[in-house]
Formats: sequence, structure tokens, C-alpha cells
Amino acid sequence: MQTNTLEKQLAFLREIDQLKSVIRQSPLLDRSRKENSAEHSWHLAMYAVVLAEHACETVDAARVIKMLLLHDIVEIDVGDLPIHGGTSVEVQAEQESIAAGRLFGLLPQPQCDTFLALWQEFEQAQTADAKFAKALDRFQPLLVNIFTEGGTWTENNVSLEQVFSRYGPVIQAGAPALWAVCERWVTRHFQGR
Amino acid sequence: MQTNTLEKQLAFLREIDQLKSVIRQSPLLDRSRKENSAEHSWHLAMYAVVLAEHACETVDAARVIKMLLLHDIVEIDVGDLPIHGGTSVEVQAEQESIAAGRLFGLLPQPQCDTFLALWQEFEQAQTADAKFAKALDRFQPLLVNIFTEGGTWTENNVSLEQVFSRYGPVIQAGAPALWAVCERWVTRHFQGR
Repeated sequence: MQTNTLEKQLAFLREIDQLKSVIRQSPLLDRSRKENSAEHSWHLAMYAVVLAEHACETVDAARVIKMLLLHDIVEIDVGDLPIHGGTSVEVQAEQESIAAGRLFGLLPQPQCDTFLALWQEFEQAQTADAKFAKALDRFQPLLVNIFTEGGTWTENNVSLEQVFSRYGPVIQAGAPALWAVCERWVTRHFQGR
Repeated sequence: MQTNTLEKQLAFLREIDQLKSVIRQSPLLDRSRKENSAEHSWHLAMYAVVLAEHACETVDAARVIKMLLLHDIVEIDVGDLPIHGGTSVEVQAEQESIAAGRLFGLLPQPQCDTFLALWQEFEQAQTADAKFAKALDRFQPLLVNIFTEGGTWTENNVSLEQVFSRYGPVIQAGAPALWAVCERWVTRHFQGR
């Protein structure tokens, strides 16, 4: 039984190696290449460790970190669907839900249930922990765009108004202090173009 | 004061983007390229989330995860010093200590102190949390070598005895159940050559 549990856990840990090959739209800060979803997840977890005090409400940082570590694992099956792309929200949610079932389903049942629940909580963005995790997931690529002369905004011809509407509500809801910084950055960025 | 705190935190989070460009010896499981230290840190944190029940003693999984998220950040300044290389332990420790001071020193003082203490605890490998974190850091590349037909062992002409002595004590000390699996894998691997 013990062996079976461990075998399933190791099969899952091998499977998720593939997240290192899912390429996102955002570049590294030195612009040498695009970021992958595994290193993005590491960076976001570090954002949570460092910035937890700026959450809108008191959060359980350990839960936020776990959420961010596993939030993109579904991309192994469905890829990274970029914020400035045209995929329908419903289609994306359906695809990701199937992916979560398959991938977390590799784990022993109790762990599968825990991971699925944590991933769903993140997706629903209703709890304080999930709102903060979502805010960081939106904040990090904004920071990257600011420090790479526009990054995906320049590539996709995104306007100041679109940045405010696509990033603002989510960051504001989970981390207003971070949104205050973003507002200054974004305004200055678009003024300078 | 608040702004100053946040500015330091964001400067640190930008600086550690460079961990994505530190290349390790281990390949990805699909052997498409070598792994970098940021995605390695993500994967190890996931190992801790999934495998915490196999720790030798009861561990605080949240602390182990934080330790693993930041354990390689010093490599931004000193690079990844591979287990099968010839760098002296003392020289490596000295270089990494200076790097930890510079990198964690970018953070506000209380956070710098916390991160330094956690990193030193990991390096010293005396507490249950650190022993388990160290065991995972040794276990993951062993798993990669097993599932990539020898990986860095084949490249460096490493023998069964060297694998047992370089990986065994650390994995055994923190996670004996994982070492039991390793012993079977390693024995089979070297018999099959």
C-alpha cells in the first residue's frame, strides 16, 4: 500500500517535469528568451513569500505558496493561454478542468482531492488566499512588461486602457498596495511611448 | 517607510529572475535540454508538497518548501557547483555565504535575517526540516539520472559505489523510504549497463 502510494506520487512528480517545456508569452527580464511555466511558478511562489504582508486581507502564506506552485500544472495538457489572446473563458475553463482531473488524478486519492480543491479555489478567486494568489499571478507579468520596455503589450499593441481593465481589478482585489505601484508604472510607461 | 520596504522587496524579486539562467548539469526528463536552477527549485518545492509524509521525522512542510524555494538563489552569484565536480567544500561554502549576504541583503532587514537563517539552516542540515530538504535536493537528480539512462553519471563515469556514497547518506538521513527506492533503482541501473 505504502509502495503503491509512493509510486503514484513519483509518477506525478515525473509527469509534471513537462511544465518546464510550456512556454509563456512573457520574456525573462534580460530578454534572452521567453519564460516557461515551471520557473514562472517558482518566481510567483517567491513573490508570495516576500510580499505576503501586502495582501488585502490576512492570508495563509503557506496555502498561497502551494496554490501558486500548482496553479499552472494544467498547462501541461492545455498550454499557456495568454491574457491578450482570444480564447473563450468557458472553453478554457472546460479544458483546464479536464487537465486537472487527469494530472492530479495521478496522485493517491486523498492528495488528488486536496490538490484539486486548492486549484479550484485559485480559479474561483473568492477566498482571501486565492485573491492574493491571483493578484500576484497578474502582477508578475505586469512587472516584467514594465521592465522590458513594454514586453507583451508592445507585441500585442495593448493600450493603457486595456492594461488597466485586464490587470487592475484582479491586482486591486488581492493586493491594493501593489496596484498603487502598478498605476504609477503603467501611466509613466504609456506617457513615455 | 512602507514604500521603501516594497521597493526593496521588488528589487530583490527582479534580481532573482537571474536564477532562470543558471544551468545545472541535470537534463529535463525528455532530455531536450539541461535544467535551470529556478525550475529545479519549483520542482523540489513540489517534491516537498507531495512527499512530506515520507520524511524521517515529522517536518513543517511549509518551512521545507520555503527552504527549497530559496536554497539555490546564491547560485546567481556563484553558479551551480555540481556534485561530481572537484570544487573544495570550504571554498564553495565561503563563496555561497558572500552571495547569500549580497542577495538576501537586497531585502528589508527583518526579511533578510529570516531568509539568511533559513538558508543557513538548510546548509547545516541539522534540523528535521533541513535534513528532509537536503534529502529531496539529492533525490531529485538521482531520479532524473535513473529515468534518463544514467544522465550525469554516464557523462562523468560515476560508479555504483560513488552513487551510494554521494547520495546515500543524505537521502537516508532525511527520507529513508525514498532511499529504499533509490537502492533498488541504482542497483538495477548499474546491473543493466
